[in-house]
Amino acid sequence: MSDIAKRFPENPLLKPSSLKASRADLRVACLLNPGVFRFQNKTWLIVRVAERPEQSEIAVSFPVISHTGETEIMNIPLKDADLIASDARVIRYKGVDFLTTLSHLQLFCSDDGRNFYEPEGYAKLAGKGRHETFGIEDCRVTQMGDTYWLTYTAVSENGVAVGMRSTKDWKSFQMHGIIIPPHNKDCAIFEEKINGYYYAFHRPSTMDNQNNIWLARSPDLMHWGDHKCILKTRDNAWENARVGAGAAPIKTEKGWLEIYHAANREHRYHLGAVLLDLDDPSKIIARTEEPIMEPKESYELAGFFGHVVFTNGHLVDGDRITFYYGAADELVCGAEFSMAEVFEALGV
Amino acid sequence: MSDIAKRFPENPLLKPSSLKASRADLRVACLLNPGVFRFQNKTWLIVRVAERPEQSEIAVSFPVISHTGETEIMNIPLKDADLIASDARVIRYKGVDFLTTLSHLQLFCSDDGRNFYEPEGYAKLAGKGRHETFGIEDCRVTQMGDTYWLTYTAVSENGVAVGMRSTKDWKSFQMHGIIIPPHNKDCAIFEEKINGYYYAFHRPSTMDNQNNIWLARSPDLMHWGDHKCILKTRDNAWENARVGAGAAPIKTEKGWLEIYHAANREHRYHLGAVLLDLDDPSKIIARTEEPIMEPKESYELAGFFGHVVFTNGHLVDGDRITFYYGAADELVCGAEFSMAEVFEALGV
Repeated sequence: MSDIAKRFPENPLLKPSSLKASRADLRVACLLNPGVFRFQNKTWLIVRVAERPEQSEIAVSFPVISHTGETEIMNIPLKDADLIASDARVIRYKGVDFLTTLSHLQLFCSDDGRNFYEPEGYAKLAGKGRHETFGIEDCRVTQMGDTYWLTYTAVSENGVAVGMRSTKDWKSFQMHGIIIPPHNKDCAIFEEKINGYYYAFHRPSTMDNQNNIWLARSPDLMHWGDHKCILKTRDNAWENARVGAGAAPIKTEKGWLEIYHAANREHRYHLGAVLLDLDDPSKIIARTEEPIMEPKESYELAGFFGHVVFTNGHLVDGDRITFYYGAADELVCGAEFSMAEVFEALGV
Repeated sequence: MSDIAKRFPENPLLKPSSLKASRADLRVACLLNPGVFRFQNKTWLIVRVAERPEQSEIAVSFPVISHTGETEIMNIPLKDADLIASDARVIRYKGVDFLTTLSHLQLFCSDDGRNFYEPEGYAKLAGKGRHETFGIEDCRVTQMGDTYWLTYTAVSENGVAVGMRSTKDWKSFQMHGIIIPPHNKDCAIFEEKINGYYYAFHRPSTMDNQNNIWLARSPDLMHWGDHKCILKTRDNAWENARVGAGAAPIKTEKGWLEIYHAANREHRYHLGAVLLDLDDPSKIIARTEEPIMEPKESYELAGFFGHVVFTNGHLVDGDRITFYYGAADELVCGAEFSMAEVFEALGV
């Protein structure tokens, strides 16, 4: 048994019924994939909230954000020959990919890291502008000084790309546009410079369906270059289709420790770990041969999209990595890794 | 008739038999898609040379560059069920896209812009490192001061991306790595800064086969951000599948003038023009409704990949835009536009 995650007995921590929909004609379908940060001595989650209208028997209905910023409902008859709706997450219609749900980001906070509530006075973050008309998703939070850098998946009819915003108070945000062009997601910025440059992981998807982790560097967090493919899928049962970074890597004495997700061709998502050289994070020191977490609890196996554990946020306290994760693309859960046990799995 | 290009009577200017293959066991299959620049009072082309081995009746054979820098020949039996070889340019084998030819870049120069020869003492530019193992292609040249910036398509098992090198003397080159990650090509850098930033066009290809022109900005040419989708395919007969920038845009009093290529779903390639705001090149002032050039000469209609005119290099002298182009993905040709006629086609 390679799963070394200690799940919270309180799981799930958040579920769709934990939150009212943003509009009367929408339902919260999923709460998932939270970014995690500390702010005002509390643990905060920035949760992806995926909404959609009640579905009828004759049409697929999904929301999009118009160019004027309004949420509009699109309806496509199920009998329309141009509709491909075999994936719960994506609709292909007349050659364009639409999402079945529209996601925004919502803050939750907690004193103990287990019981989360909606803080007053903090608005939701919604897609804005023509590169976010299908929503924003899966936010990573990188803190440097008193500034938080949010990297998230920006989805629109122009493709899936990486957007960035920054904030100091979680009430006002500066938008920095698309920092990595399509098709790209899973961008996590390192929390300190290395040899004068900022670094980030990201995950392009190519035409021939390669989904590997790349590393990029930046002088200013806004502009990125020197892109390198550093971690590829492997032809084994748990990571043969897609790999993508989780949150910002953890700086340890042994190297940069990154918890990543890996999906196989059956769309089953696992977590793995990789250790990168402190001075040159394009160099891999060690990588787990087996997943360190795999879907096994009932709330991970069945849901909006079953057999998924996906993390993009954690807090570190000594040996303990407390991480939050999306389960079955529907629920927010929590668990812990012992760093010593992760190193053991890495063989270092 | 919307084709306003005045083709050179000397066409084709360069063809595969103009050049000896780089190795005895390879054949030059195509000379195409030249970048263009002035250097030492001559007109220079940096031509893509696509080579492959003699093909047998039992296997597809193609060259790749190994990690040690050697060119190796790969052979895949035609009867292998995992082989998909329906496109002259690309082989899909076991889920990975390979190229049927391996491209490098070769310099040619000319006193009159029509008769080109191989200059002595200038080596070919070949793919280098693990992001260029399937070769380098379609180089754009942007001159600023005495430095030439080369942006080209870098192809490898890691995907299709934009690589950059720079030079002052065309003998020694500095490599700048991958500046835009996969899937991306057709990157052309503007020849001056706008409001303190460098700008470039590039062309991502998304999972749902969107192929639109994006604009990015940079403080230093190495790192790029604020990516915006600015010019999309349109549902008409000549540009409904792919659009991509040509060379660096031409600064005119009316705006930045860009000659771009457009392919339709039948893989027929045309040229169009777009005029962008001088102060904010993400704003489109005008775009040609009809192509300003389309394949019609015999050397454009039939060849390695027929029905293609593709330009990524030009020189400007007053009203005259002298441009060089790849014809049928096999030959290098030349032609001229009158700028006044291009503006007329743009309706400005």
